[in-house]
Amino acid sequence: MEFSYSQQSLDLQRELQGFYSEHIIPRWRDWQIAIKRNNNPHPNFVDELRTRAKDRGLWNLALPDLQDDQPGTRLSNLDYAPLAEYMGRYHGSSIVFNCQPPDVPNMIALQHDANPEQRKRWLQPLLEGTTRSAFAMTEYSVASSDATNLRTGITREGDSYIVNGHKWFITGAAHPDCEFFIVVGQTDPNANSARQHSTIVVPTATEGVTVSRELSYLGSYDSTAPVGEVHFDNVRVPAENLLGEEGDGFVSGQVRLGPARVHHCMRAIGNCEMLIELMLNRAKERATFGRTINEYDTVQNNIAMSRIEVEQARLLVQKTAWLLDQQGFRGARREVSMIKVAVAQIYHRIADRALHIFGAMGGSDDTPIATSYAWARAFRIGDGPDEVHLRQIYRMEQQPEGELADSPYILPPISAS
Amino acid sequence: MEFSYSQQSLDLQRELQGFYSEHIIPRWRDWQIAIKRNNNPHPNFVDELRTRAKDRGLWNLALPDLQDDQPGTRLSNLDYAPLAEYMGRYHGSSIVFNCQPPDVPNMIALQHDANPEQRKRWLQPLLEGTTRSAFAMTEYSVASSDATNLRTGITREGDSYIVNGHKWFITGAAHPDCEFFIVVGQTDPNANSARQHSTIVVPTATEGVTVSRELSYLGSYDSTAPVGEVHFDNVRVPAENLLGEEGDGFVSGQVRLGPARVHHCMRAIGNCEMLIELMLNRAKERATFGRTINEYDTVQNNIAMSRIEVEQARLLVQKTAWLLDQQGFRGARREVSMIKVAVAQIYHRIADRALHIFGAMGGSDDTPIATSYAWARAFRIGDGPDEVHLRQIYRMEQQPEGELADSPYILPPISAS
Amino acid sequence: MEFSYSQQSLDLQRELQGFYSEHIIPRWRDWQIAIKRNNNPHPNFVDELRTRAKDRGLWNLALPDLQDDQPGTRLSNLDYAPLAEYMGRYHGSSIVFNCQPPDVPNMIALQHDANPEQRKRWLQPLLEGTTRSAFAMTEYSVASSDATNLRTGITREGDSYIVNGHKWFITGAAHPDCEFFIVVGQTDPNANSARQHSTIVVPTATEGVTVSRELSYLGSYDSTAPVGEVHFDNVRVPAENLLGEEGDGFVSGQVRLGPARVHHCMRAIGNCEMLIELMLNRAKERATFGRTINEYDTVQNNIAMSRIEVEQARLLVQKTAWLLDQQGFRGARREVSMIKVAVAQIYHRIADRALHIFGAMGGSDDTPIATSYAWARAFRIGDGPDEVHLRQIYRMEQQPEGELADSPYILPPISAS
Amino acid sequence: MEFSYSQQSLDLQRELQGFYSEHIIPRWRDWQIAIKRNNNPHPNFVDELRTRAKDRGLWNLALPDLQDDQPGTRLSNLDYAPLAEYMGRYHGSSIVFNCQPPDVPNMIALQHDANPEQRKRWLQPLLEGTTRSAFAMTEYSVASSDATNLRTGITREGDSYIVNGHKWFITGAAHPDCEFFIVVGQTDPNANSARQHSTIVVPTATEGVTVSRELSYLGSYDSTAPVGEVHFDNVRVPAENLLGEEGDGFVSGQVRLGPARVHHCMRAIGNCEMLIELMLNRAKERATFGRTINEYDTVQNNIAMSRIEVEQARLLVQKTAWLLDQQGFRGARREVSMIKVAVAQIYHRIADRALHIFGAMGGSDDTPIATSYAWARAFRIGDGPDEVHLRQIYRMEQQPEGELADSPYILPPISAS
Repeated sequence: MEFSYSQQSLDLQRELQGFYSEHIIPRWRDWQIAIKRNNNPHPNFVDELRTRAKDRGLWNLALPDLQDDQPGTRLSNLDYAPLAEYMGRYHGSSIVFNCQPPDVPNMIALQHDANPEQRKRWLQPLLEGTTRSAFAMTEYSVASSDATNLRTGITREGDSYIVNGHKWFITGAAHPDCEFFIVVGQTDPNANSARQHSTIVVPTATEGVTVSRELSYLGSYDSTAPVGEVHFDNVRVPAENLLGEEGDGFVSGQVRLGPARVHHCMRAIGNCEMLIELMLNRAKERATFGRTINEYDTVQNNIAMSRIEVEQARLLVQKTAWLLDQQGFRGARREVSMIKVAVAQIYHRIADRALHIFGAMGGSDDTPIATSYAWARAFRIGDGPDEVHLRQIYRMEQQPEGELADSPYILPPISAS
Repeated sequence: MEFSYSQQSLDLQRELQGFYSEHIIPRWRDWQIAIKRNNNPHPNFVDELRTRAKDRGLWNLALPDLQDDQPGTRLSNLDYAPLAEYMGRYHGSSIVFNCQPPDVPNMIALQHDANPEQRKRWLQPLLEGTTRSAFAMTEYSVASSDATNLRTGITREGDSYIVNGHKWFITGAAHPDCEFFIVVGQTDPNANSARQHSTIVVPTATEGVTVSRELSYLGSYDSTAPVGEVHFDNVRVPAENLLGEEGDGFVSGQVRLGPARVHHCMRAIGNCEMLIELMLNRAKERATFGRTINEYDTVQNNIAMSRIEVEQARLLVQKTAWLLDQQGFRGARREVSMIKVAVAQIYHRIADRALHIFGAMGGSDDTPIATSYAWARAFRIGDGPDEVHLRQIYRMEQQPEGELADSPYILPPISAS
Repeated sequence: MEFSYSQQSLDLQRELQGFYSEHIIPRWRDWQIAIKRNNNPHPNFVDELRTRAKDRGLWNLALPDLQDDQPGTRLSNLDYAPLAEYMGRYHGSSIVFNCQPPDVPNMIALQHDANPEQRKRWLQPLLEGTTRSAFAMTEYSVASSDATNLRTGITREGDSYIVNGHKWFITGAAHPDCEFFIVVGQTDPNANSARQHSTIVVPTATEGVTVSRELSYLGSYDSTAPVGEVHFDNVRVPAENLLGEEGDGFVSGQVRLGPARVHHCMRAIGNCEMLIELMLNRAKERATFGRTINEYDTVQNNIAMSRIEVEQARLLVQKTAWLLDQQGFRGARREVSMIKVAVAQIYHRIADRALHIFGAMGGSDDTPIATSYAWARAFRIGDGPDEVHLRQIYRMEQQPEGELADSPYILPPISAS
Repeated sequence: MEFSYSQQSLDLQRELQGFYSEHIIPRWRDWQIAIKRNNNPHPNFVDELRTRAKDRGLWNLALPDLQDDQPGTRLSNLDYAPLAEYMGRYHGSSIVFNCQPPDVPNMIALQHDANPEQRKRWLQPLLEGTTRSAFAMTEYSVASSDATNLRTGITREGDSYIVNGHKWFITGAAHPDCEFFIVVGQTDPNANSARQHSTIVVPTATEGVTVSRELSYLGSYDSTAPVGEVHFDNVRVPAENLLGEEGDGFVSGQVRLGPARVHHCMRAIGNCEMLIELMLNRAKERATFGRTINEYDTVQNNIAMSRIEVEQARLLVQKTAWLLDQQGFRGARREVSMIKVAVAQIYHRIADRALHIFGAMGGSDDTPIATSYAWARAFRIGDGPDEVHLRQIYRMEQQPEGELADSPYILPPISAS
C-alpha cells in the first residue's frame, strides 16, 4: 500500500484553494442567503464562477477516464480526494467545477455503458457543463436498498421501450435544467434476479414524464440538485436509448455507484472538517457558568473524538480511492462498503455534536449545520443503508476453516475423570 | 409512592380518546396536508374543534390551579399525564383543548405572578382561548441555558419601563394572534445574580417590537406556535406591566418551567408511542432480501428497546407529576431535571430509529417522523440542554461522608512488611 | 397502578438497615479480605450472622408463598424489593437472610412443583438454611438461551431415571454444601418442543455426578454460590425424584425464572447505588490538572446519568414486582423481560463508569467494582441474553391493524396529474 | 504520506508466520493450559523458543535504534507494525522474540537516556534477553494520569539517592526475573512542574524494595510481565544510577511512552483480528431458534463493524509509526494520542462483542476472550486514560482565527428594520 498524491494533485490542491479564497469564499455568504432566504439557488455569479473554473482547467476533476479531447483535467480517484474534500467544506460548491452529483456518476455510467452515438448525445453536454441529468432508481413502493425489488417496467414495443413507474428521491430531478434521466427498470421479470433490470435514457421532455414535486429530507432541500418525485406513465422512448444490453442494469449501477459513494465520502470528510472548525470557533466564544464552553471536557472530548474519527476515515477513503484506481470496482468493493458505513456514521455523529454545541442556532438556517445534519443523516440511508453494507462486509469476511473446538485458541472443558 | 389516576382522569381518558376518534383522526390527514402542502396551519375546522372541546369541558386540562369560575376542567398534574400523552401522539393537536405551549406555561406564570388586574387583562383571554402569547427569554448573543447571561434590558423610566433586546427562538412569537410577550430581562445588573432579572408583559402591538422572521429547527416549523426572532428597540410599557417585583424574574421562570418541561415530556412519550406504532406497521410491510424487515433482529431490537425506554420514562414522568402535585416545584426539581434529560434522549433515539426504518420516506414530509425528529432533537437543547440538567442532578446527589479509604467497601493496599 | 410498600415492609427496611449497620458493615471488610485474599469465602461469623438474622425473622424474605409453619417472614414481591435492593449493595450478603440465589428460586420451584414428600425431603432443609442446592440447566455444547437446545438425557429405566449430560455455569454447584441439583433434561425428544423436557432432583452424592471444576466469569468467582462444571454420567436416581410430570420442565423453568430475574434486578439496582456512592466519593478526592475530578463535566454527567438510569429502572422493577404479585408470571412476563434487559444494561454501564473513574484501582480486587463489573456483564448473558428478551418483547407488541398507506399519519404521494 | 513496508519487512512477515505455524501454534494450547490451569506461565519450551527465535534473527525487532553490534534485527517502527500485529494475535507470545513490554520500552529509555556505563550494566542484558525489568511510575495515592502528581521522593544524600514511595500497577514487577526498576520520582518539588521529576535505576535486590503482591485487572493476571505493588522504603542507590540529569524525568517518560503506546496499539489490532476470527467461527456453529447465529443481522453487523473499525485503526497506526520514524515523537505526538484513544476503544468494543457472542464461555478461561477483554478495558486507562489524550488532542487542534460572526459560514440574524 502506497497512497501518496502526485505532484499534479498537490499543485491542483494549491490552485483550488486559491480559487476558493479569491472567488468563492468572498461570495459564499451571498450564495447562502440567496439559497436560504431568497429562494434563488443559482445566483448569476455561479455561472461566472463555472466559466472561470473551466478556463483554468479546474473542471471535470472527478473523471479518471476523461479523454484527451474532452474538457477538464484527468485525475486518478486518489488524486481527486483532497480536491473533493475541499469542495465538501462548502456544501454544493462542487458545481463550480462540474464535479457535482449526480452528474459525475452519470458521466461515469455513460463513459462505461454508452455507445459512441449515445456519448455524443448525452455525455458530451454533461462534460461541457451545459446540461444536467438525474439517475432514476429508487421507487416509492419498495425497499430500493434491495435493488431486485425495483418494479418500474421497461417494455419493448417495436422500436421503442415503454417506461412505467413511480420513482422518488431522485436527486437532480427537480432541477429546471435536468434534461434527461437514466432510468433503472425491469426489462425481463422472468430472468434471474441479476439480469432482470436495464438502464435507459429518458429525456425529461418526453410525454408521460412528470416531476410532481420537490422533496426535502429533514427539511433540507438540495440547492444544486433538487430531489424529485417522478412519474413515468407510458413513456415511450426509442430503443436506441437503452444503455448496453437488456439485463445489464445491475452491472451499470455498480460501475456508477462505486465512485458515487467514494466521492460522497470525500466531500463528507471535508464537511466534517468545516464542522470541527465551527465547533472550535463557537466553543471559544460561548460562555456558561463562568467559563467559555471550550473549558468543559465534554466539549473538548467531542471535538477531539471528531478529529480522531475524521483522521481514521480519511485514510480509509484514500486507500479505497487508491484501490479503485489500481483494481477497479471489484477490487475496492469491500472498502467502498466500509467507507460508506464509516463515513456516514461519523458524519452523522460530528454533525450531531456541532448541532449540540451551537444550541438553537445550530438547527436554524443561519449556519450550515442543519443542512450538514440532514445530509449526514440521509447518507446513512442513501447509497444503501448501513445494514445493507454491513451485511455485504460480513459476507466478504473469510470464514475460518475447521471447528472451533480444534482451534488452538480454545481450551477443552475439564472432563469428569 | 402511590401514583394512580383518579376516576375523573380515567373517565376523561376515555372521553378524550372518543373525541379524537370522532373528530380529530378523521381530519388529521387534511390538517397535515394543510400545514405541509398548503401553508395553512390553522384550517377552519380547528376553530370548530376548539369550540366543541370547550363545550364538553375538554378544556384547560393542564392547569391544577384552575379556579372554579374559570373555563375548563381542573386536574392534577398526574391526572393530566395520560391526556397529555394522548395529545402528544398527534403533534400540535393540544391546541384543540387549549393545552398548547407556550400558552399553558404562560397561564401558569400569570396565575402565580400576576396581580388581579393583570390576570383580568392577560390571563383571562388565554383561559378563554381567544388570544395567544409568547415567553421571550432566549437571546441571540448569549448562551441562554445559563439564565444569568440574559442581557435584554428592562429599565425604569418614570411610570414606564423601557425594554431593549434581541430575542430569538421565541415559541409562538411568529403567530399572527400572539398578543403579548412575557419578557425576561435585566432590571438591575448590579444585584446579585439571582435577583438581576424581572418579567414584564409587552404587548406585541407596542412600538419598537418587531418579529423579524419565523425560525425553523432542522427544517421544521412549529405550526401551532411558530417560533420567532424578536427585536425590542426602546419599547416603552407601563410600569404596571411588571409581573411581581423587580428581581423576581428567576423565580417566575422556575414556576413556569417546571410544568412546561413535565408537559413536554408527557407529550413526547405519546409521540414515541406513535413512532413505535409506525415502526411496527412499516416493518411488517416492507421486505428486503426475501424477508419482511420485521424478521431482522436489528429491527425487532430497535422496536423492543423503544418499548423498554418508553415504559421506564413514563413511570418516572408519572412520579414527577405526582411529586409536583404533592410538593410543588421544589420537591420535584430533581425529578423534573431527570425526565427532561431522559425523555429528550429516548425521544431522539426512538425518532432516529423510526427515521431509519422508514428509509428516505422517513425524512420526507409524508410522515410525521421528520417533525418528530426535529422536535426530539430540539428538546435536547430547549428547556435547558442535557448538560445543564445533568449538572443540576449531579449537584443534588448526596455526597458521601468520610474518606474513601475508610469505606467498608475499600480494602487497604498490602504493605511492605 | 398503585405500587406502594406495606407498613410491614417499611418496618423491615428499617430493621434490615439496622442489622447491616450493627452486624454486617463492621465486618464487611474482613469478610471481603477473607474472600479475596485468604480464600475463605465463608468465615465463621457468617453462620453467627445467619443465626441472628433467622432469630429476628429476617429470614426467607423472598418467598411470597411461604407457609405459616415455615421459618421466616412472608412478603410480597413488591415489599421484598427495597430489602433485596439493600442486600444488593453488599454483594453476596443475602446469604445472611437465606435470600441467596440459586436457593431462593429453587425453593420457589419446589414450592410449585414438588409433592409433599419431595418438599419435606428437599425444600424444608433449604428453608431452614441447613443445606444448599443448584439448578442444572445450561449445557456446554449448545446455546442454552434457546432452552429447546438442551440435550441432557433423563431416561426412564424401571423405577429409576438415568441422567446423562454435561452442564456448566451451574451456580452453586461448586459449593461444598451443595446437596442436590434440580436437573433439566430431555425425557422425550420426540414430544413437541415445549413438552420434551423435565426436571428431576439429583443428589450431589450420587455415583456418576462429578463437579469437575469451579468456573469464573471475567476472573470473578461467586463466593457464596460458586459456579461449577458438572458431568452426569449414567447417574441413576429414583423415579420419585421427578418434579411434576414428564414434559413439565419448561413450565417449571418459567415459574422459577420469573422471580429469579426480578430478584436479580432488585439486587443489581442496590449494587448500582453502591457504585454511585463510590463514584461520588472517589470524584471528590481525586485530582488531576489542578481540579478534583468531580469538577469535570464528564464525571458529573456520568454520575448524573447513572442516577437517571437507576431511578427509571427501579420504578419499572417495582411495577414488575407488583404485577407479579397481582397477576403471576403470565401477567408480568413482558415486564420481566423488560427489566431483565434494562437493568442488565444500566448495571453494565454504571459499573463501567465506576471502573473508569477508579482508574487502575477499579480493576483490582481492592474495591467491589471488578466483581460488580463481571456480574453486570454476565447478567447481560445469564437468565437469557439481551437478544432473547428483546425478541420476546418485540413479539408481545400489539401489531397495528391495517395498511400503513391508510394510516392517518401518512400522507399520500403526489400524483402525476 | 507514503507508508509501505520494506522488502525486509515483507520477508520477515513470512518468516515470522512460518515460525508461529511451525513452533508456537502447535504448543499454544499447552502454553495456555500451563498458564491458566497449572499456574506455570513460563513452561520449559518457552526458553527453547526464545533461543530458536534469537538464532534466526527474529529478535529485538521493535528497536529502530538497535546498533550493529547488538543482537537482533533492526527495523523501523512501520516495518515492525505487521510483526507486532501478528504477535498480538497470541497474547503474551512477543516474549519469544524479546519484543515484550515493558522491556522493549525500557530498552528504548535506556538507549536514549543511559550513559555508556549504564547501558553496559542495564541495557545489554535486556538486549540479550537474559534479564527482565520494570518501569515504576504509577502510584497508589495519586491520579498518575497527571504525572505532575507523582510523589515518590528521590533525594540526594552524598553519593547516593534515597528513594521513598508506594508504586502499584507496575508491569513486570512481580516477575521473579525482574532485576531492576526504572523509578520515576521527584528530585526537586520546588522546580517548575516539568522539571521536578527524574528517573533512576533501582535494582530489585536493594534493601527497602518490597514487591508486596501481584495485582490483577478484572481478574486477569499478566502471565509474561506480572503486575506488582512495590514499596520503596528508604532505598539507597548510588548516584550514578540516575538516568540523565535531575529534572529529565518527564522527557524520558515521553521518549519511552511513545513507542510503548504504538506497539501496544499494534498488538491490540492483531488481537482484534483473533477476536473477529473467533466470532466468525462461533457464529457459524452455534444455533438458536432454528438458525445458526451468523444468520442474525446483529451478529453480522457486529462482525462487520469490527472489521470496519480494525481497518481504519490499522491505517492510523501505520501512519503513526511512519511519522514516528520520520519525525520522532514530537512529530507523531498527536497521532500517538489519537491511536491510543481509538485503538483502546475499538479493542474494548470488539472484545465486548466477542464476549457476547460466546455467551458464558466467553467469560470463562477456556477462550482468550476474557483476557482480551480485561486488557482491552485496562488499555482505556493505562498509558493515559481516554480523557487525558482527548484533552491533548483538543489542545493540538488549530484554533480558527477571527470571530464566528465574521465567518463566511455564518449568516447574520435578520434585523428589525
